Amino acid sequence: MSEREAARAVGGPDPDGTARAVGGPGVGGTARATSGPDAGGTAAADWWATAVSRIEPDVIELRGQPVQDLIGRIGFAEMIWLMLRGERPDPRRAALLEAALVSSVDHGPHAPSIAVARMAATCGVGLNNAVATGVNLLGDVHGGAGEQCVRLLEEVVAGSRGPGGDTGGDPGDVRTDPGGGDAGSGPGGEAAAVVARWRARDRYLPGFGHRFHSRDPRRDPLLGLVAEAAEDGVVAGAHLRAALEIERLIAPVPMNIDGATAVVYAELGFPAPLARGLFVLSRSVGILAHAWEESGQGRRNKGPIPPSILPTWI
Amino acid sequence: MSEREAARAVGGPDPDGTARAVGGPGVGGTARATSGPDAGGTAAADWWATAVSRIEPDVIELRGQPVQDLIGRIGFAEMIWLMLRGERPDPRRAALLEAALVSSVDHGPHAPSIAVARMAATCGVGLNNAVATGVNLLGDVHGGAGEQCVRLLEEVVAGSRGPGGDTGGDPGDVRTDPGGGDAGSGPGGEAAAVVARWRARDRYLPGFGHRFHSRDPRRDPLLGLVAEAAEDGVVAGAHLRAALEIERLIAPVPMNIDGATAVVYAELGFPAPLARGLFVLSRSVGILAHAWEESGQGRRNKGPIPPSILPTWI
Amino acid sequence: MSEREAARAVGGPDPDGTARAVGGPGVGGTARATSGPDAGGTAAADWWATAVSRIEPDVIELRGQPVQDLIGRIGFAEMIWLMLRGERPDPRRAALLEAALVSSVDHGPHAPSIAVARMAATCGVGLNNAVATGVNLLGDVHGGAGEQCVRLLEEVVAGSRGPGGDTGGDPGDVRTDPGGGDAGSGPGGEAAAVVARWRARDRYLPGFGHRFHSRDPRRDPLLGLVAEAAEDGVVAGAHLRAALEIERLIAPVPMNIDGATAVVYAELGFPAPLARGLFVLSRSVGILAHAWEESGQGRRNKGPIPPSILPTWI
Amino acid sequence: MSEREAARAVGGPDPDGTARAVGGPGVGGTARATSGPDAGGTAAADWWATAVSRIEPDVIELRGQPVQDLIGRIGFAEMIWLMLRGERPDPRRAALLEAALVSSVDHGPHAPSIAVARMAATCGVGLNNAVATGVNLLGDVHGGAGEQCVRLLEEVVAGSRGPGGDTGGDPGDVRTDPGGGDAGSGPGGEAAAVVARWRARDRYLPGFGHRFHSRDPRRDPLLGLVAEAAEDGVVAGAHLRAALEIERLIAPVPMNIDGATAVVYAELGFPAPLARGLFVLSRSVGILAHAWEESGQGRRNKGPIPPSILPTWI
Repeated sequence: MSEREAARAVGGPDPDGTARAVGGPGVGGTARATSGPDAGGTAAADWWATAVSRIEPDVIELRGQPVQDLIGRIGFAEMIWLMLRGERPDPRRAALLEAALVSSVDHGPHAPSIAVARMAATCGVGLNNAVATGVNLLGDVHGGAGEQCVRLLEEVVAGSRGPGGDTGGDPGDVRTDPGGGDAGSGPGGEAAAVVARWRARDRYLPGFGHRFHSRDPRRDPLLGLVAEAAEDGVVAGAHLRAALEIERLIAPVPMNIDGATAVVYAELGFPAPLARGLFVLSRSVGILAHAWEESGQGRRNKGPIPPSILPTWI
Repeated sequence: MSEREAARAVGGPDPDGTARAVGGPGVGGTARATSGPDAGGTAAADWWATAVSRIEPDVIELRGQPVQDLIGRIGFAEMIWLMLRGERPDPRRAALLEAALVSSVDHGPHAPSIAVARMAATCGVGLNNAVATGVNLLGDVHGGAGEQCVRLLEEVVAGSRGPGGDTGGDPGDVRTDPGGGDAGSGPGGEAAAVVARWRARDRYLPGFGHRFHSRDPRRDPLLGLVAEAAEDGVVAGAHLRAALEIERLIAPVPMNIDGATAVVYAELGFPAPLARGLFVLSRSVGILAHAWEESGQGRRNKGPIPPSILPTWI
Repeated sequence: MSEREAARAVGGPDPDGTARAVGGPGVGGTARATSGPDAGGTAAADWWATAVSRIEPDVIELRGQPVQDLIGRIGFAEMIWLMLRGERPDPRRAALLEAALVSSVDHGPHAPSIAVARMAATCGVGLNNAVATGVNLLGDVHGGAGEQCVRLLEEVVAGSRGPGGDTGGDPGDVRTDPGGGDAGSGPGGEAAAVVARWRARDRYLPGFGHRFHSRDPRRDPLLGLVAEAAEDGVVAGAHLRAALEIERLIAPVPMNIDGATAVVYAELGFPAPLARGLFVLSRSVGILAHAWEESGQGRRNKGPIPPSILPTWI
Repeated sequence: MSEREAARAVGGPDPDGTARAVGGPGVGGTARATSGPDAGGTAAADWWATAVSRIEPDVIELRGQPVQDLIGRIGFAEMIWLMLRGERPDPRRAALLEAALVSSVDHGPHAPSIAVARMAATCGVGLNNAVATGVNLLGDVHGGAGEQCVRLLEEVVAGSRGPGGDTGGDPGDVRTDPGGGDAGSGPGGEAAAVVARWRARDRYLPGFGHRFHSRDPRRDPLLGLVAEAAEDGVVAGAHLRAALEIERLIAPVPMNIDGATAVVYAELGFPAPLARGLFVLSRSVGILAHAWEESGQGRRNKGPIPPSILPTWI
C-alpha cells in the first residue's frame, strides 16, 4: 500500500495531538472552502463550529433562542434539557428530570467527590477549583454506574420489543412490590438473558445493590414518579418495567440510586453518557455546598484524618 | 516566649498539610471527648462533621429534610438554595435565582471554560473530567468578577445606610434609563466614593464594561426582574439602586453579566464567594453541553487551532 | 441465596462511595484488630496504610530511606524510580529512564494538554491549577498510547518466548534499518499474529504512525540508547526487537514517540499503566513551561482563537 | 471621555472571555500584518506564538535545541531548567535544583494533595486524572508558601544591599548553628524590619514553623548544600544568609521545607511563582506513587474514613 494509505490504516492515537479527523464544521455541516482569501481564518472558525450557541456582539442565542427570551421564562432544569437536547421539554417530562437532579445532589463526606472538594477548600484554591476537584472524581466507578445502567436497560428493552414494538407488561406498584406486575410478556425473558450476559462480563450489575443502604430512600419516590408518568402516557414505561424485572430476578438485591435515575434518564430519552453528565450537574450542588461549609470552618490543608492518627506503615 | 507560643505565632501555612486549626466538629459545634475509648474513631467522625447532610443506613437527610420528601416536591433551583443556605426560599426569590442561573450557562467557544472542555472531550477522558476541566478555569479573571461585584455593591449599600437604615431612592426604569431615578439621596454620593476607591486599587471595576458586547442582552431582562421584585417588596432593591448609580457615574460603560447577576445574588443575600459558586453551577451546564457536542464530532486530541496553522516561533 | 451473598454477587459499583473492599492495611499487610480500645483510630490508620512513605514527627522515610540520606545524593530520575518501584536503579537503567522523560516534555500548543494550560494561566487561577488542567487531558487518546503500546509489546514478547525463555534475534542497527536483524526466530511470527489481533479490535496500533511527523526526531536517539544498553546487557532487548519487528511488518509506517518510550519503559520493567504515569511526569514540565510563559504575556481569559474570528454557527 | 476611552478605563475582567489584551505574538515579538491575505490564519498563528518550542513536521526544537541533541545528553533536572529558563545550567547549579526537587516529593497521606489522588485512583478515572486531582490542591496554603517565602527573602536581600551591592555576612555553620554567623552587617537589620512588616499583614511567616516536625529532617541537608555552593562561589549566598537571620530572629521557630527550598530557588534565580511550579513538579512524583499504590489495593470509591465511622451530624 502507499505510504499515505498505510498511515491512514495505522494512524495511531496521535500522541502529540497534532492530527485531527478531517471534518467540516461539524456533524452534517458543510465544509467551507479552506483555500482562497483568509483560508486560515475560515479554518479556525470552522474548527470551533457549534450548534449549541451563537455569540456575536450584542447577540447571545442558546440553541437558537435569544437569551433575553429565556431569562425569567424557563426553569433551570428545562434550560439544562434545552442546552443538551436542543429543544424544550414539556412540563411533565421536565418535572421528571428535575426530580432526578434533586435526588443525587449529595451523599455526605464518605463520598470521595464530596471529601476531596472539602479538602481542596482548605488549600487556598478558588471555590471553582474545589468544585472541579470533586467533579473530577465522578468516574466510571463513582457516578459511572448510571451510564452503564442506562445501557443495561436499553439492552433489555431492545430485546423485549415484539413485532409491534410493544414491550407490554404492567409495572405494578413500584413502591410496595419491587418486582410486581405481569412479567409474563414484556421484558421477562429478555431481562434474564441480559442479566446473565452482564454478570458473565463483570460481577457488578450497574444500578443494583448498595453496600450502605439496605433500601435506598430515593428509590421509591423516583420510581413512583416514573410510574405515574407512565400511567399518564408521558413516558412509555418500558425502561421502568425492565428495571423492575431485573430487580425481581436478583431479589433481594434492591435497585439503587444509579438504577433509579437511570430509569428516569432512559425513559426521557437521554443517551447513556448523559446519565453521567446529568449526575455531574446534580452532584455539583452538594460538592459546592460542602466546599462552602468547609471554607468557613477554619482548617488549613485538611487531610483525610486528624493529625493525631498516623497512617499505618506497611 | 515559649516554643509552643512561638510556634503558634508563626505557625506558617503548614507546607505538608499535617497541622490543622484546633476545632471541634464545626462552627458552634461541641468538641466531644477525644480521649477515652475509641478516641480515634470519635476524632475521625468529628473531623468530617457537617450540617449539610446526614447519611446513615437507609437515611438521607439534606439540610435536615428527608430526601424522600424532596424528590418531586422541590425544584432544582430551590434545591440549590436549600443546600447552600440551609432553608427553602419563597417562590419569588427562587425565581430570581433561577433566572440568574439560566442567564450564565454559556458564552460559546471563545470562553476558555468552554473551549478547554471541548478539547478535553477529544482526549479520551470521561465526560466528568471534561466538565471538571472547564470548571477549573472559572477563576478570579473568568467568573470571579461576580464575586468582586457583590463586594463592590455591598460597600456602596453599607455606606448608603442612613440612620434609619433606609437606602432611599427609586431605581427608575432599568430598561431604558441606565441611571434613572432619584439619586439625590440613597447611594449617589456613596457610589462615587466607592468607585473612586476601587479604581485607585485596580483599573478594573468588576461587573461593568464588556469588550465583546456594547450592550449585553442579558442585562435588561435580569435587572427588569429585580426591579419588579423590588416593587413587590420581595427584595429590598438597595443593591439594584447601587449598581444603577455606578452605571450612571461611569456612563457610557454598561453593566455586564457579572454585574447583573451580582445584583441578583446580593439582593437575595448570598455571600460574595457564592456568586462565583453559583456561576460555576450555571456555567457547568454550557460546559457539559459543549463537551457532549464535541464528543460526537469525531476529532481526536483536538488542539486550539487546525493543524494547518503552525504557532508562530518567537 | 442469602441476602448477604446476593449483595456480594451484585455489589454494584457503589454509587455513593460508602462501601469498600474488605481489606487490611494493604497488599500483604496484616489487618490489625478493629475492635477493642480505639478501634476507630486503628481502622482510620489502616485505611491510609502505605508502603510509599513513613511520616512521623521529625521523621520522613521514602520507600524506607531517610530523606536526609537522599537529598543531594540521588538524581531526580532515580528518585522517580525509587518512589514508583521501591528500590534504586543502577545508573545505566536510570539513564534510560532519564532519556525517556526528557524526550516527552513538550510538543507545542497544538497539543491540547499544552493549550489548555496556557489558557488556564490567563484565567486567574494558580500556576498549579494551570498545570493540573493540562495533566487532566493526558487521557486514553492523548498520552494513553504509551500504556497501550507496552501491553502490545508484552504480548509479542510473551508469545515469542521459546522453551528456554529466549526471545532470540539481533535488533540490527535501529537507526538506519527500521526492521533489521534476524527475525527468523524470536518475535517474527508472533509479532504478525499479535498485530493482526490488535488491528481486528481497533484500527489504531498504539505506538506507530504519526500524522504530524513522517519520521519523529525522537525515535532514533531513544532506540539507539536502548540498543546500546541491550548490547551491554543492561536490558534484555526483547521489547526493542518486538517493536522493530512490528515496524517492519507495517512499513512504511514508523514508530512514534509513544512506541519509542514504550520500548524504554517495557525494557525497564515498568508496568503498562506507569508508562502513562511517567508520560505525565514528563509532559508536566512542558505544561509548566508554557503556562509560565503565557502568564507573562498579559492576556486575560484567553480563548482558543483571536476575538476577530467568530466560531461558525451550525 | 469618549466611549472607547471609558471602555478602556473600566474594561472589566471580561466575564465571558472574549476580549484580550492587544498584543503581537508575545513579549518583544513583532505583530505581523493582520489584514491582507489569510489575516485570520496569521492572527491564529500569532495567538499561539511561543518561544518554548518550535514544532514542525519532523522538527522538534525545545528552547531552540533540537530534541535529538538532548535525548541521552541532558538530565531531567537540567531539562526542567532549560524549559523554564531558556538556557542550560552549569552542573553545580543543576545539582542544587535536583536536590530541592528530590526533597519535596512526598509527605504521606496526611497531605491533602496525596490523599485526594489516592481517593481518585479508586473512582475509575485515569492515572493522569488522579495525579491532576492532587496537583490541583497545591494552592496558596498547600504549596504556596515556597513562593511567598521567595518573595520574603528577596525583600530582605534587596533591602540589605549596601552601595556596592554587597550583602555581606558569613552564614556560619547552618547545620549546628541555626542563626550563626556575623549578622552585624548584611541582612541583620533588614531582616527584622521585613519580618515586622510581614507579621503585621498576616500571622503566618511563610517558610517558617511546622506543626508536625519540631525540626524538619530536610532542612539541614538542603541548607548544607547551599552553604557549600556559596563557599565555592556557585551561588551568592545572600538569600541563605537572609533566611538564617530570620530564623535566628524568631527562634526557636525553625525553617521548614518551604523555607529551605525557597532558599535554593531564590539563590538559583527562579522567580517566586516558579517556586510553586517546581514544587508541583516535585510533589507530582509522590502523588503518582501514591495513586499507583492505591490503584493496586482493590478499594472502590474510597472515602476519607472507613465506612464504620459515620461523620458527626452538626
